[in-house]
Amino acid sequence: MNRLHALLEEIQSMDKEICKEAQKKWDAIGKPLRSLGKLEEMVIQLAGITGKLIPKVDRKAVLIFCADNGIVEEGVTQTGSEVTAIVAENFTKGIATINSFAGVAKAATFPIDIGINQDMTNVKGMVHRKVAWGTHNIANGPAMTRKECEQAILVGIDMVGALKKQGYELFVTGEMGIGNTSTSSAVLSVLEDVPVSQVTGRGAGLSKQGVKHKIEVLERAIRINRPNRQDVLDVMTKLGGLDICGITGAFLGGAIYHVPIIVDGFISAVAANCAIRLAPDVADYIFASHCSAEPAGKFALDAIQKEACIQAGMCLGEGTGGVIGAALFDFALAAYQEVADFEQADVKPYELL
Amino acid sequence: MNRLHALLEEIQSMDKEICKEAQKKWDAIGKPLRSLGKLEEMVIQLAGITGKLIPKVDRKAVLIFCADNGIVEEGVTQTGSEVTAIVAENFTKGIATINSFAGVAKAATFPIDIGINQDMTNVKGMVHRKVAWGTHNIANGPAMTRKECEQAILVGIDMVGALKKQGYELFVTGEMGIGNTSTSSAVLSVLEDVPVSQVTGRGAGLSKQGVKHKIEVLERAIRINRPNRQDVLDVMTKLGGLDICGITGAFLGGAIYHVPIIVDGFISAVAANCAIRLAPDVADYIFASHCSAEPAGKFALDAIQKEACIQAGMCLGEGTGGVIGAALFDFALAAYQEVADFEQADVKPYELL
Repeated sequence: MNRLHALLEEIQSMDKEICKEAQKKWDAIGKPLRSLGKLEEMVIQLAGITGKLIPKVDRKAVLIFCADNGIVEEGVTQTGSEVTAIVAENFTKGIATINSFAGVAKAATFPIDIGINQDMTNVKGMVHRKVAWGTHNIANGPAMTRKECEQAILVGIDMVGALKKQGYELFVTGEMGIGNTSTSSAVLSVLEDVPVSQVTGRGAGLSKQGVKHKIEVLERAIRINRPNRQDVLDVMTKLGGLDICGITGAFLGGAIYHVPIIVDGFISAVAANCAIRLAPDVADYIFASHCSAEPAGKFALDAIQKEACIQAGMCLGEGTGGVIGAALFDFALAAYQEVADFEQADVKPYELL
Repeated sequence: MNRLHALLEEIQSMDKEICKEAQKKWDAIGKPLRSLGKLEEMVIQLAGITGKLIPKVDRKAVLIFCADNGIVEEGVTQTGSEVTAIVAENFTKGIATINSFAGVAKAATFPIDIGINQDMTNVKGMVHRKVAWGTHNIANGPAMTRKECEQAILVGIDMVGALKKQGYELFVTGEMGIGNTSTSSAVLSVLEDVPVSQVTGRGAGLSKQGVKHKIEVLERAIRINRPNRQDVLDVMTKLGGLDICGITGAFLGGAIYHVPIIVDGFISAVAANCAIRLAPDVADYIFASHCSAEPAGKFALDAIQKEACIQAGMCLGEGTGGVIGAALFDFALAAYQEVADFEQADVKPYELL
């Protein structure tokens, strides 16, 4: 058995007993019962993940998987592949949107070259984990080899493992890769067995005609590659991006290392879908954050049975929605840890009626 | 003309020219156009409100209007009126949920006794603006006099004015008052001309039967008081709470003093509705935050044509949802102020297609 499969077999569901304890703790806090809604559920899940009744997530990390996609040569994007490397380098300079957002949420950013189609070895602040120099054009054949797919997944798993050792307690998944809404739409279409047109949108700014062309190209990619939808790794290998594989690994890493991990937008939700199909218990370790403005944003979250607290019409990627979601934990945990119980509050407990 | 009416006449719409400038600034930032969705709109509105292309909201204040409601004697709540004073005092001790949330968002809290049915004069940290010792039972007659209603509105206006002078740049509306979902449902039902049953929910934890009784009591209150729905002050006087009046004033204060002011949950949205009816341009100064889990939470926001970014199933009040909404401004403004433009980012600008 190879290392990935051995790791997948390790994955277990979260600790449901501690979840019950955490619910009891919430119900003792001096406020109307269940009145913090999903914030209460977040903390309960967090307790189950970490095995701690009083969990904390002070140290947050945003993993930004950067990779190029061969399909860009089909003209399915507004900008060229060269933008991936430029923006990835901008992450290291601290001048991209995710840098500002991470600053507000007090999260550290880790841009990872998992498959940029340029030499990044001299870029300081980049995590160098290049599996390949971008993928092949899926409109002509498989994106990568199965070995590359597994290797990219392991990159994600190992990033979470290594950073947990450094003390990081919560992870946000992000990505940068021109063409990655295309690969995500193709993968999601096959996994969920729905027409490409139902899960394909404007990406970073296509025209209506551009979207039509994107759909045709993706339909061709699926026809040519004939992925086996019962075999997730086959779908990822043939239609995926290296970023999707890396994020899938990060979600698996959440389950393996018992740390919470947050979905960002459309691409990230598709990767979460892959991870849950590889090991269903991974779902326990995953949190939604925002619902992407990509037309299939809600569909992608529904498919993994996650609900987003934030509906802000965002579709920027990089982990920008996820890091806002991460900030919600600070509110939830502050209430959970600090607020007086009914006795201290001098209020008679509410009853669940 | 009395002071309130003179102030209402001062209210003007926000500066639409600066809004256009702010949109231009967003479009120059190195990211897909409009990809921060509502966060972009928030900053544009903020620019229009403050008249500044680069607005800031570093100093945030939560105004928690605390008041009792005579209707509680009809048995429409799970807890008794005495809880209002206890929880209001807890705000001053820093042990309530809003205190924890405000700590995370770095906001200051101002609990205001605008109508608690107990002597609070010895409670340190409370802002003393008592208009009356609670309202009368609206099931028997008017909640208050028209003069009291106007006086309570002026309390809200003046709180915003005074705190703006102290340097506060953004306001969150909060409340505490046993029975205040009842008064809010009655007011909303009349203003929007919909059946009470459509806008009435469980409040802080009623049973199904309790909700049925609450609806009957509110229908009686409306029948007995015969409010004139064309005259907002009449509706507020007859069915309102002093907290609703105070929050209405705070929204008006936002427009008068050109500062942003955030809706919290159901009660606050009803007060925003009152404020907008008193002076339609007030809508420019108001932001939604979360959508309350009260069944009419969404209806109340739709009625003022505001969309909430946060859907977390919360219904705690105190300003807890509003203060999370306030934190979103920090993300939006960080991106708006810090992120590289297309030239600095070394990326060709995107086009709106």
